[in-house]
Amino acid sequence: MPSFVSNLESAIDGTVLSADKIQTLHKDRPLWVRYDLDKIKRSLQIDNLKNRPHNIWRYKELLPLSPEDSVISLGEVVTPIISCEKLGKKYGLDKLYIKDESSLPTGSFKSRGLVMAVNMAKKFGVKTVAIPTAGNAGGAMAAYAARAGMDAYVFMPEDTPLINKFECKVFGAKAFLINGLIGDCGKIVRDGKDNIGWFDMSTLKEPYRIEGKKTMGLELAEQFNWRSPDVILYPTGGGTGLIGMWKAFNELDQLGWLKDGKRPRMVAVQSDGCCPIVRAFDAGERFAEPVENPYTIASGIRVPSAIGDFMILDAVRESGGKAIAVPEEKIIDYMELTAKTEGISICPETAACVVALEMLSNEGWLQADEEIVIFNTAAAQKYPDITEIKFTMIDIGSPIDWDIIRR
Amino acid sequence: MPSFVSNLESAIDGTVLSADKIQTLHKDRPLWVRYDLDKIKRSLQIDNLKNRPHNIWRYKELLPLSPEDSVISLGEVVTPIISCEKLGKKYGLDKLYIKDESSLPTGSFKSRGLVMAVNMAKKFGVKTVAIPTAGNAGGAMAAYAARAGMDAYVFMPEDTPLINKFECKVFGAKAFLINGLIGDCGKIVRDGKDNIGWFDMSTLKEPYRIEGKKTMGLELAEQFNWRSPDVILYPTGGGTGLIGMWKAFNELDQLGWLKDGKRPRMVAVQSDGCCPIVRAFDAGERFAEPVENPYTIASGIRVPSAIGDFMILDAVRESGGKAIAVPEEKIIDYMELTAKTEGISICPETAACVVALEMLSNEGWLQADEEIVIFNTAAAQKYPDITEIKFTMIDIGSPIDWDIIRR
Repeated sequence: MPSFVSNLESAIDGTVLSADKIQTLHKDRPLWVRYDLDKIKRSLQIDNLKNRPHNIWRYKELLPLSPEDSVISLGEVVTPIISCEKLGKKYGLDKLYIKDESSLPTGSFKSRGLVMAVNMAKKFGVKTVAIPTAGNAGGAMAAYAARAGMDAYVFMPEDTPLINKFECKVFGAKAFLINGLIGDCGKIVRDGKDNIGWFDMSTLKEPYRIEGKKTMGLELAEQFNWRSPDVILYPTGGGTGLIGMWKAFNELDQLGWLKDGKRPRMVAVQSDGCCPIVRAFDAGERFAEPVENPYTIASGIRVPSAIGDFMILDAVRESGGKAIAVPEEKIIDYMELTAKTEGISICPETAACVVALEMLSNEGWLQADEEIVIFNTAAAQKYPDITEIKFTMIDIGSPIDWDIIRR
Repeated sequence: MPSFVSNLESAIDGTVLSADKIQTLHKDRPLWVRYDLDKIKRSLQIDNLKNRPHNIWRYKELLPLSPEDSVISLGEVVTPIISCEKLGKKYGLDKLYIKDESSLPTGSFKSRGLVMAVNMAKKFGVKTVAIPTAGNAGGAMAAYAARAGMDAYVFMPEDTPLINKFECKVFGAKAFLINGLIGDCGKIVRDGKDNIGWFDMSTLKEPYRIEGKKTMGLELAEQFNWRSPDVILYPTGGGTGLIGMWKAFNELDQLGWLKDGKRPRMVAVQSDGCCPIVRAFDAGERFAEPVENPYTIASGIRVPSAIGDFMILDAVRESGGKAIAVPEEKIIDYMELTAKTEGISICPETAACVVALEMLSNEGWLQADEEIVIFNTAAAQKYPDITEIKFTMIDIGSPIDWDIIRR
C-alpha cells in the first residue's frame, strides 16, 4: 500500500522535512508526521474498517506503514475497555472505564510506539538501536529488535523495576545498569551514536513512536463508536502517549469521523515527587523546568525533563484539560484498591491516575455523567518489587488449623 | 440470551446430570457440558460472528453464559497468532505459529477457564471460592473473584513462581504457602469445603473451566478461516486446555463449520521430570499412574496426577496425536532461544513445546508444509526467578569505556 504520509514537520517551528529519509530532531526538538488527510478522506470510510483484523494495523492509512509492507509484528491487539462501576461509584462517577494496555506484547503500552519506531528504523536500514529506559520501553524495544534481527542496547538506572530489567535480557539485548538517572542513560545513548554507531530510540527523538501511540486514540474513538469520551487520565512521563492521542483526535476530527467534533479533555497525571509538566501548566509556561532530585515509585513517570514538554502542554491546554500532581505516598494504596475493587491489575503509574480521579472528583472538575477513561499502561504483575508481601505458611506435617485460614 | 446448554454428562460413564444446579464431580471424575448443537446450527451461522466483539464472548452460543447475562469480564481478547518463520526454518518447518495467550487478563491462558468458572459459580450463588495452584490459576481466579465480589482462598507450594504468588495478593485473595506439592494444596481445598464452606475451583472439579478453555480451539479455527491447523503442541499439566480444544473441534465439526471436517493432531507435551500422561500414552493405558517426586522448572506442568487423565489421553489418541516428554534441562535454553529468535516472550511450559517441536521434526513426525501451532500459555515476564541474570554496571562517575559496551 502506498503511504499517505506527506512529510515530517518540526514541532517547534513548523519547518517541513522529508519523510523519505531517516530523521531525528530539528533544533533539538521532536518532529510531527503529517499525512495527506484529504487523500485519506477519499480512500477510507469508517465502514472499510469492519472487515479488518483487530489490531493496530487496522488504521493503516493513518500510520507510516501498513501490513502490506511486511511489518515486524508481535500481535498488537486492540486493547479492551473495562467498565469500572464499583470504583466509579466510590467517587460518584457513573461512567468510568479503564483501557487495559497490558494485553499488548511485552505487557505494556510501550509496544505501540516501539513497534512503529523499530519498523521504520528497519525500513531505513538501521542495524543497531539503543534506548535509555527506567520502565517498559527497554523490553518493548528489545522484543521488536530481536524480531527484526537488529542489535539492541538498553541503558537503565539500577533501580529500574526487576521485570523491566529482566525482559531486556530475555530478548537478548545488551543491557547495562547505571548508577544514575534516566538522563544519565540518555547521555550514554546520545554519545554512543558516534562511538558505537547505533540509532537513538529515545522518547520523541525519532518521529514514529508518536504514530504508534496515536493508535490509543484511534482505538478509543472506535470503541466509543466515533464519539470521544469526555475525559482521559493519562500517566505522563515523556508524554508520547498523550501527544499521540491528541494528534489522533485532531486527525479524526479533520477526517470528519468524530461525532459533533467533540474531543476529550486530556489530563496529564504526575507524582508530586516529579511533576515538571504540572509546574509549567500551573505557571502558564509552555516549557518545563527540569526537576531536581525527582522521586516516585512509578518509575515510568520519573521523567525530570521531557523533550516534548511543549507538545504535552499544548495538547492539555487545547483540550481544556489539566495537569495534576498526586501525593506520592498514595500510589501503592490505590494500586491495591483498584485491583481488589475491580479485579484489574494496574501499574503504579496508572494508580497515580486513580488518585487524580479522586482529587478531580472531589473538586468538582469531573461530573457524575461524564465518560472518563484511565489508561492502564501495564499490569501490576510487572512490579513484584514495589511492595513487600507476606504469606502465612502452612505446615503439612501438622493438622490444619482452620481458624488461621479463616482469619 | 437463553442458554443452549442441554445438560451435563459424566465423562467417565455418560450419566446425564442437570445443568440447572451447581455440580462438581461424578464418581470422582469430571463432567462435560453438553449443548443442543442442532438448535445452535439453526440459530447461528458463521456470518453472524462478523459484527461481534473480538473477545471470547463472540462464541456465546457455544458457552454456558452470554454477555447479555451481565457477565463478569476483564476483557478476554482474541489472542494473536504470530508467525515464526525463523524458528520454523531452524527445524525445517514452513508454517509455524505461536498463539500468544499472554494478552489475556492476568497475562495467561488461565483466565479463559476461570472467567467461566467464576461466572458460573456466581450464577449459582457461591460467595467463597478456593483453589490449589502452582502457577497462573491462582492469580486468574483471584482477579475474577475480586471483580465478582467473592472471597478467594489460594493455596500454593512455597516454590511457586514469585509473580504467581504476588498476583494472588494483589487481587486481595487470602493466599497461603504450603511446604508441599500441589496435591497437598488440593487436599486442603478439598477438606476446607466442610470446614470453611468454600467452593472447590480445582482443575476439572467443576464443569465450566473446560468451556472457557474451549475458546482456544474456537478462536484458532476462526483464525485459520474455519480450517483446522495440522498439529497443535500444548504444554500439558491438568490438561484442561487440550481437553477443551478437542471438544471445540468436535463441536465445530458437528456444526459443519470445519472445512473437510479436518481436525488437528493434538500433542501433549510434558517434561521428563513429570510425565504421567506420556507414560500412560506409551503404555497404551487410559489412566495415568501418579508420578513420585515430580520435578520440572515449568511449574504449570508439574502435575503428578491429573483427574482428567483419560480425557487427555482419549483426545490425543482420537486426534492421531501423541504425548511426548522433553529433557528437563533443555527448557530454559529454549525459552531464551525463542525470545531471541522471534521476539516472543514465552514461559517455561511453552519452551517445553519448542523442545518437543525439535524432537518431532527430527524424527519425521512433523512435515515441512504442515501448519503447526504452539500455545504460549504465559509470557516470560512472569518468571523472573527462573534464571539468574547478570548485568554490566556502568559508573557515571568515570569516563565511559566504549569497548566494554561494544563487547
